[in-house]
Amino acid sequence: MITDVHEAARDTIEVGAAAGGYPVFVGTDLLGRLPDVLSSYAPAHRVAVISDDRVGPIHGASVVETLTEAGHDVTFLTFPEGEASKTRTSWSILTDEMLEAGLGRDCVVVAVGGGVTTDLAGFVAATYLRGVPIIQVPTSTLAMIDASVGGKTGVDVHAGKNLVGAFHAPRAVVADTAVLATLDTAQRAEGLVEAVKHGAIRDESHVTAVVRRSGPLVGAEPEACADVIGASVRLKAEVVAEDEFEVGVRQILNFGHTIGHAIEAAADYRIGHGRAVAYGMIAEARIGEGLGVTEVGTAARLIEALAPLTDRGRLDVDVAKARGFLGADKKSRGGRPRYVLLRRIGEVLHEDGWTREIDDEAVYARLNEVVRGW
Amino acid sequence: MITDVHEAARDTIEVGAAAGGYPVFVGTDLLGRLPDVLSSYAPAHRVAVISDDRVGPIHGASVVETLTEAGHDVTFLTFPEGEASKTRTSWSILTDEMLEAGLGRDCVVVAVGGGVTTDLAGFVAATYLRGVPIIQVPTSTLAMIDASVGGKTGVDVHAGKNLVGAFHAPRAVVADTAVLATLDTAQRAEGLVEAVKHGAIRDESHVTAVVRRSGPLVGAEPEACADVIGASVRLKAEVVAEDEFEVGVRQILNFGHTIGHAIEAAADYRIGHGRAVAYGMIAEARIGEGLGVTEVGTAARLIEALAPLTDRGRLDVDVAKARGFLGADKKSRGGRPRYVLLRRIGEVLHEDGWTREIDDEAVYARLNEVVRGW
Repeated sequence: MITDVHEAARDTIEVGAAAGGYPVFVGTDLLGRLPDVLSSYAPAHRVAVISDDRVGPIHGASVVETLTEAGHDVTFLTFPEGEASKTRTSWSILTDEMLEAGLGRDCVVVAVGGGVTTDLAGFVAATYLRGVPIIQVPTSTLAMIDASVGGKTGVDVHAGKNLVGAFHAPRAVVADTAVLATLDTAQRAEGLVEAVKHGAIRDESHVTAVVRRSGPLVGAEPEACADVIGASVRLKAEVVAEDEFEVGVRQILNFGHTIGHAIEAAADYRIGHGRAVAYGMIAEARIGEGLGVTEVGTAARLIEALAPLTDRGRLDVDVAKARGFLGADKKSRGGRPRYVLLRRIGEVLHEDGWTREIDDEAVYARLNEVVRGW
Repeated sequence: MITDVHEAARDTIEVGAAAGGYPVFVGTDLLGRLPDVLSSYAPAHRVAVISDDRVGPIHGASVVETLTEAGHDVTFLTFPEGEASKTRTSWSILTDEMLEAGLGRDCVVVAVGGGVTTDLAGFVAATYLRGVPIIQVPTSTLAMIDASVGGKTGVDVHAGKNLVGAFHAPRAVVADTAVLATLDTAQRAEGLVEAVKHGAIRDESHVTAVVRRSGPLVGAEPEACADVIGASVRLKAEVVAEDEFEVGVRQILNFGHTIGHAIEAAADYRIGHGRAVAYGMIAEARIGEGLGVTEVGTAARLIEALAPLTDRGRLDVDVAKARGFLGADKKSRGGRPRYVLLRRIGEVLHEDGWTREIDDEAVYARLNEVVRGW
């Protein structure tokens, strides 16, 4: 029996971080290896497993069982599913529950779930007793490809998405692609939008690979998923290692996100993150083409890659409200939103920095257009 | 006219930090140099000045005026004075006010006040858009000597003091000892308790210096204050540079604090931090003497140093409640509180680490004893 997680993983990506690099294990049967991951990367007697109330009874409970059998003292905490829970209130409640359970600095948090869980539990760990270790166990394609890697944690506030948070690198990330079979097809597909984004900003061949394999990916074939997720995480890890705290090149990971986040916030998060980012990427590619800085045909190529992954119809969103959220973006300077534009698929435009300000009218026109469908 | 803060400062201490070291300027006429400090250490167009509603109208307003005259766009935020404001609620309100004002990642926070303000505004800066720079402008002896230096930020919660927070190193600290004249004598004296602590853990001669100069210090002679504060910050800076994130030696700065924090929390923070730590140091020195690990006479020497600085009478605190808070200390392991013990004045006991577990009965006996006065 293989008990070592390095042997069991199909792919292992090392991510550089100031507080110490960490591995992202990607493979098809890794949840059972969590005791090994804990003892190697975050030795602790007491563990807080955090999940939402949908993933919790399935994967959360199984992680709790595995860790308990391995001799850990586990406190299992859940919160209501959905982006509406990614708030300071949920963060306070989870923190107080950990304090009540008497967890000290010698504990570790294990987050089991999608992007909401990895972001929220990450912020709890970042601020609990001024910071305790966390192991991220993403259970959605989106969280495996993006949210669990890179150390960004945070919550949403009235003014916009992810506006309060901290950088808190995990000790390890365990992405077990076998669990993707428990997602519905639409969720699985939507998460791949971020894989397309990683290719769009760094590696054209990765976009081609996602397109070519989107059948097996959406069908949740665990090994096809592991390959594409591993390759996608590797692209993100390169960017994060260069600029962990997003003062420079890491901003390119926000391609599609200035508009994507504004759409999500305006829709009160009823539109999924992957879907909103797909609309954002298409709008931002069209803006670049309109300005003559993005190669003509880039938006069309993105549409081809994204169409199998998400519904492309009209969005039920108040465009005026979305405009209002553009300025709340974290990349804003002097209150003006900034955008990441592509030069072509696989390459971001770099001129006096990785982001640029764009005339409001050009943005609004493309925003109006994209919400009608693409 | 001297405009350069380096020339104007009587003492400048460099503090090492992972995210970049920073200077602590100590001197007698430094508030007017803040524009220079901002342009050198945290260049930003937009500034959030955060103060409480007692310091705000005095020093906060003067800082706002200086910065505005220098061309900065300043947002001035205040919160109600006192430890009762050091909460997640105040943190949320200040954050939302900054978001409402449209402050982006290109802003800087300037905290003007005592320890509550530097801790609270520090946590706001640490988590605002995942972190923006902060300049600490301490206005109490306690905040100059201790709270503003070292990057610890945080808030109190029901379970105890400083249990939620983050490490967030400032870009610079500006300690203008001229402002100490606006404090009352008791406040000024109480802050010097932390100076005695710095000497007690690292440098016997510093304890002697504080004792010898406590007259001019308590009388707020700005230059005597600058000398002692500078020397005290230098001792703390050495410890912080060795172990910024408190995994090892930095724990010695918690001498007197396991019991001190429990007393504060049990008294609902009606007892000042400096005073509570004085009681804590005496109790912890007596515990060490009782165990035979602390040189006999250490507690007596501390009493001699601390007596001029704080009221030494009976405390109005529920001892049973204080016991309950001991386990909530951040140094706890496996739910058991840990203590920093002295070997003698100027040296901490180091045996298998910088903290140790102590039999509850020994702790309770000294806690019961100390709250009756010393």
